[in-house]
Amino acid sequence: MRPSERAPDMLRPVTLETGVNRYAEGSCLVSFGHTKVLVTASVDETVPGFLRGRGQGWVTAEYGMLPRATHTRGRREAAEGKQSGRTQEIQRLVGRSMRAVVDLKALGERQITLDCDVVQADGGTRTAAITGAWVALRLATRYLLEEGVIAKDPILDQVAAVSCGIFSGTPVLDLDYEEDSTAEADANFVLTGTGDIVEIQATGEKRGFSQAEFEALFSLARKGIADLCDLQRQAAGG
Amino acid sequence: MRPSERAPDMLRPVTLETGVNRYAEGSCLVSFGHTKVLVTASVDETVPGFLRGRGQGWVTAEYGMLPRATHTRGRREAAEGKQSGRTQEIQRLVGRSMRAVVDLKALGERQITLDCDVVQADGGTRTAAITGAWVALRLATRYLLEEGVIAKDPILDQVAAVSCGIFSGTPVLDLDYEEDSTAEADANFVLTGTGDIVEIQATGEKRGFSQAEFEALFSLARKGIADLCDLQRQAAGG
Amino acid sequence: MRPSERAPDMLRPVTLETGVNRYAEGSCLVSFGHTKVLVTASVDETVPGFLRGRGQGWVTAEYGMLPRATHTRGRREAAEGKQSGRTQEIQRLVGRSMRAVVDLKALGERQITLDCDVVQADGGTRTAAITGAWVALRLATRYLLEEGVIAKDPILDQVAAVSCGIFSGTPVLDLDYEEDSTAEADANFVLTGTGDIVEIQATGEKRGFSQAEFEALFSLARKGIADLCDLQRQAAGG
Amino acid sequence: MRPSERAPDMLRPVTLETGVNRYAEGSCLVSFGHTKVLVTASVDETVPGFLRGRGQGWVTAEYGMLPRATHTRGRREAAEGKQSGRTQEIQRLVGRSMRAVVDLKALGERQITLDCDVVQADGGTRTAAITGAWVALRLATRYLLEEGVIAKDPILDQVAAVSCGIFSGTPVLDLDYEEDSTAEADANFVLTGTGDIVEIQATGEKRGFSQAEFEALFSLARKGIADLCDLQRQAAGG
Amino acid sequence: MRPSERAPDMLRPVTLETGVNRYAEGSCLVSFGHTKVLVTASVDETVPGFLRGRGQGWVTAEYGMLPRATHTRGRREAAEGKQSGRTQEIQRLVGRSMRAVVDLKALGERQITLDCDVVQADGGTRTAAITGAWVALRLATRYLLEEGVIAKDPILDQVAAVSCGIFSGTPVLDLDYEEDSTAEADANFVLTGTGDIVEIQATGEKRGFSQAEFEALFSLARKGIADLCDLQRQAAGG
Amino acid sequence: MRPSERAPDMLRPVTLETGVNRYAEGSCLVSFGHTKVLVTASVDETVPGFLRGRGQGWVTAEYGMLPRATHTRGRREAAEGKQSGRTQEIQRLVGRSMRAVVDLKALGERQITLDCDVVQADGGTRTAAITGAWVALRLATRYLLEEGVIAKDPILDQVAAVSCGIFSGTPVLDLDYEEDSTAEADANFVLTGTGDIVEIQATGEKRGFSQAEFEALFSLARKGIADLCDLQRQAAGG
Repeated sequence: MRPSERAPDMLRPVTLETGVNRYAEGSCLVSFGHTKVLVTASVDETVPGFLRGRGQGWVTAEYGMLPRATHTRGRREAAEGKQSGRTQEIQRLVGRSMRAVVDLKALGERQITLDCDVVQADGGTRTAAITGAWVALRLATRYLLEEGVIAKDPILDQVAAVSCGIFSGTPVLDLDYEEDSTAEADANFVLTGTGDIVEIQATGEKRGFSQAEFEALFSLARKGIADLCDLQRQAAGG
Repeated sequence: MRPSERAPDMLRPVTLETGVNRYAEGSCLVSFGHTKVLVTASVDETVPGFLRGRGQGWVTAEYGMLPRATHTRGRREAAEGKQSGRTQEIQRLVGRSMRAVVDLKALGERQITLDCDVVQADGGTRTAAITGAWVALRLATRYLLEEGVIAKDPILDQVAAVSCGIFSGTPVLDLDYEEDSTAEADANFVLTGTGDIVEIQATGEKRGFSQAEFEALFSLARKGIADLCDLQRQAAGG
Repeated sequence: MRPSERAPDMLRPVTLETGVNRYAEGSCLVSFGHTKVLVTASVDETVPGFLRGRGQGWVTAEYGMLPRATHTRGRREAAEGKQSGRTQEIQRLVGRSMRAVVDLKALGERQITLDCDVVQADGGTRTAAITGAWVALRLATRYLLEEGVIAKDPILDQVAAVSCGIFSGTPVLDLDYEEDSTAEADANFVLTGTGDIVEIQATGEKRGFSQAEFEALFSLARKGIADLCDLQRQAAGG
Repeated sequence: MRPSERAPDMLRPVTLETGVNRYAEGSCLVSFGHTKVLVTASVDETVPGFLRGRGQGWVTAEYGMLPRATHTRGRREAAEGKQSGRTQEIQRLVGRSMRAVVDLKALGERQITLDCDVVQADGGTRTAAITGAWVALRLATRYLLEEGVIAKDPILDQVAAVSCGIFSGTPVLDLDYEEDSTAEADANFVLTGTGDIVEIQATGEKRGFSQAEFEALFSLARKGIADLCDLQRQAAGG
Repeated sequence: MRPSERAPDMLRPVTLETGVNRYAEGSCLVSFGHTKVLVTASVDETVPGFLRGRGQGWVTAEYGMLPRATHTRGRREAAEGKQSGRTQEIQRLVGRSMRAVVDLKALGERQITLDCDVVQADGGTRTAAITGAWVALRLATRYLLEEGVIAKDPILDQVAAVSCGIFSGTPVLDLDYEEDSTAEADANFVLTGTGDIVEIQATGEKRGFSQAEFEALFSLARKGIADLCDLQRQAAGG
Repeated sequence: MRPSERAPDMLRPVTLETGVNRYAEGSCLVSFGHTKVLVTASVDETVPGFLRGRGQGWVTAEYGMLPRATHTRGRREAAEGKQSGRTQEIQRLVGRSMRAVVDLKALGERQITLDCDVVQADGGTRTAAITGAWVALRLATRYLLEEGVIAKDPILDQVAAVSCGIFSGTPVLDLDYEEDSTAEADANFVLTGTGDIVEIQATGEKRGFSQAEFEALFSLARKGIADLCDLQRQAAGG
């Protein structure tokens, strides 16, 4: 029995609220249960130096966590003077995940930055961030299309993510913090709307785990991500 | 005529929503019009080194702004590797303002940190932060009293803040961004519930300004802060 | 009775010695009693990026304190790897104060940097720095006029500063360190030669303070700054 | 046809040379073709703060790349003043991989640090580092056993790693730089000697990829890692 | 002919003014012509961690240059966030030079820090700093003796320094900036009062130079340092 | 008797192995006994900003030490976030030493960076680095000549370095770590192939030392460097 009393293949209540920032070209407050991440998409009419003059755009992400997003207050990274390895790892993952479904040529020489700020954390912040970031990105690119800034839709597919893990020997979907902190293994899956793999990160936390266990996690993830993609389409307005 | 069509002595709609973070000992989402600051109060059972063994507590604040809180995206301070001078100036001000109304002996050897994170900015973020921080602090100290952690209420008075400025030659209350960016002078007032001065920061932005003008601003601030104190009491439950 | 035996409205002996650096376009060693600040004005024929091509100049300031300027040695900020919040707050204040009396268009596309380095500290370093910085700035702009680099005098007015505070219940002018460390409130006033307000920073250190107390401090400051302006004119040669 | 003319399931020539540092408790120079990583294992008789007094040890890793390890010189991270996100991601991965096969209780309150320094890079530096780090770790723990510092062997299993990818539509084993830079997808597999999963990181570089493709990569990795485990046993002396 | 019209073996006018800081245990403003360095000696009743409990003291130095000490304004190291290699090299040299003439056991478990801040630079700042630092150190240790803090004089000998160089083919003593910037070779000599070598740093700036040239420089330095030692004794009061 | 049983004027076994990095334009693994430094020369077709458009090139060096190059593991400078003063001092010395024998005009507007990474340290790493760096530089410039990138050989002379010291009262050549850590004085000599002085750094570690002692060290160095120059010519192929 999961602490949350959810069935093994059950997501937490997921909401994707859009239009939560009046300045951003796209925004989404994504909740997976008590995990809440505020995502904004910001369009910048320049590209990073390494892309200048190449006739293509870029999509990148930054990630942060408010100090009291967690049970006990963490240190503020800006005060520390650097981003942790974990933060950098997550923001690199979010950026790669978005770029996997964007036609960077169609975007033109401009950059979209997805800022993912965790307001409250209860496990699965990186997968929530990816799921919400796609919605914010979808809204920002639609805005660019509607304004006539770009002529061709750069979004090739949806992308969403969920974590799975082996909790007390059972493969379960969408770990919350209590489950995550004692799971034997956990895996983050990032899949497209058509079910292709964008990224898999699977880790044995306390022991190695078998291929059969891995496949059970993968199977849960495919189901969960299909549901998340439905929610994304509803949130982003088709 | 103000761009916002407000009368010179009129605050923006102000709301103080409590209980917005499930982990923090006190929390408040404060809005002054489109300016929104999320404040959490976190209790830590240790004090900074310079106070150890002194039999007194400490109250401090940290301030941050989400990159897209503003019209155009700003750089993330954690990625920059340092907090700007402006950020440090504001968090020092918030901390001083709270300490002015706290009996640090009554708090005992523990620290309360007020994290003030600007989710959306439309002028007056530091004064909104102070006004909301008092509510979060009030809730956290009440929690400590109710839990029996402390025996005596350390809160001596309320404290709230507002900005005023000279806009097109007229003294006005509670500047929004559009007003602030063209004001000839602006002043932040931090007053207690009994009307005493905790802090005044007045600056001539484009020119020096006269003592009479200063007094007009001060008079507007007293009125505005009295209203904010009413709202604080309602939000904090008396 | 003040520890210094000064009357409540009496400044410490103030000197403004010019020509103390053979390379700087303007320089001034300002002393308020034992507080000594060395100020140099350096002209740079470029402006910061945000002003390039705007046909106007910029005036900025940097502030530092030698490690043994104080009773006990402080840490060297260059060795620490960052400037403290206090340092940044002060240098921003000095820069704003100077810009309030400079016609930046008349300065042309060049920058003047006022370096304010505290050689010995006994309270009031920021107000001494402002008072001395105006002298160094005045000398540097006169040099530019005499060299024919600029055609129109960019200095619109004088600016000087002093701190006041409530010491043992009495409002007093020009706090030294001993007074400052036990004052109930203190306020820094930056006024122009014509008496307009450039900046007021008033803080209740141990308690809030009343409007009447504030007005007593303001009144002392006006008197003190008038005297400082006389000294500035003598030092800068009319 | 692979640029290297290798069959799809063929590793590059792999060597694991031990005893390459006269001070380290264990050391290994691992080569996968032109990729060369120098690994040292250093025993420290203290543990990080969060483990003090817990009666268990710790294994961690640091990763670096000499500036000219690559075709064109990269910047030296020590001169830059920070480690890149990529560096931190890799050193976290190497540390987790080692800890998955170590009985930290048996290690006692001491730490082993695996320094992985890339002397020459031609793709697959992180998987080479893991494969070599296990050898250095094995030698260091044997040294501790032989010296009587610890009584029980803390090594529970082997761990080795390899990258696979889809190159020109074909799943191939052990990507070199030329293959890696144009691969459609790549995946790093970290498996134990008994074939359990320690970590999988799979990424679609240019497109999402299918589950069938993923399984082909996984199958290649199992074969390659079995061979690497044979080489590890030979190098570490059984 | 030297630009300064000095004879090859002639020092600039050297002054060593003591008592220039009212808080420091020893202080000296040293001038070599237009080069002026303010040195303070600060006693701290703790030693660095690596010496704790060893029954001996430590002497160290820090070096800085005010931004406008030079012809054109340099960047402030505290604002840059780090000390340059040159700064670190110089402060290490000053510290080593002082320790060479101090009995660290006799000093007891306390540290003396020599802060050397260049107020104006015209060549030879590091040698001026060493020469002045000895005076400040001498005064601080005499203070400790007189206060009864230490019982035995820890100063074993004097130490002073001067630079020499080959200017237009001629070996000359005490280079000023104009000479230094075009010298073919320069050498800094740090010698004790009894003429022993504490440190020699000789560099061919534009070409290698011969042993005979080196010996000519050494000979000039011995003469100059003998004169500096006389001045030190006069300044430090015997 | 030296711990190493070498005669006072005997170098450790020195080897200079070239071609150790397949990407660098020149490379050399230099060993002085157990001290091993890997040097690569990298050509970059741009020069630092201060030289742009001056029609000349630049030669610079960077130095690093692998964490376990030493008996006990040191901290990784990239993880520390800064290079130590010692590191900066050494890399500045290596760069100056190379530039002393290079015709920067003949090099054209390009930069050669010598990366000197200490793989194992047993004293004398900086002098080994210089000796090996010349070989890597020689190979890189020959490559530029052979490729027709430059027309004229920019190498004016050889440059090599060795340390000497006073060990148990006896002047000895080429200190190893055990000797270095107890030497009374040590000196690093950098001389050209024709015997001119490029740099001398002599330090009394525990006491000042006499001119006669210095001359004995210098004499040993001249002999040792002559031998090192022979080895350089053999390694670099004449």
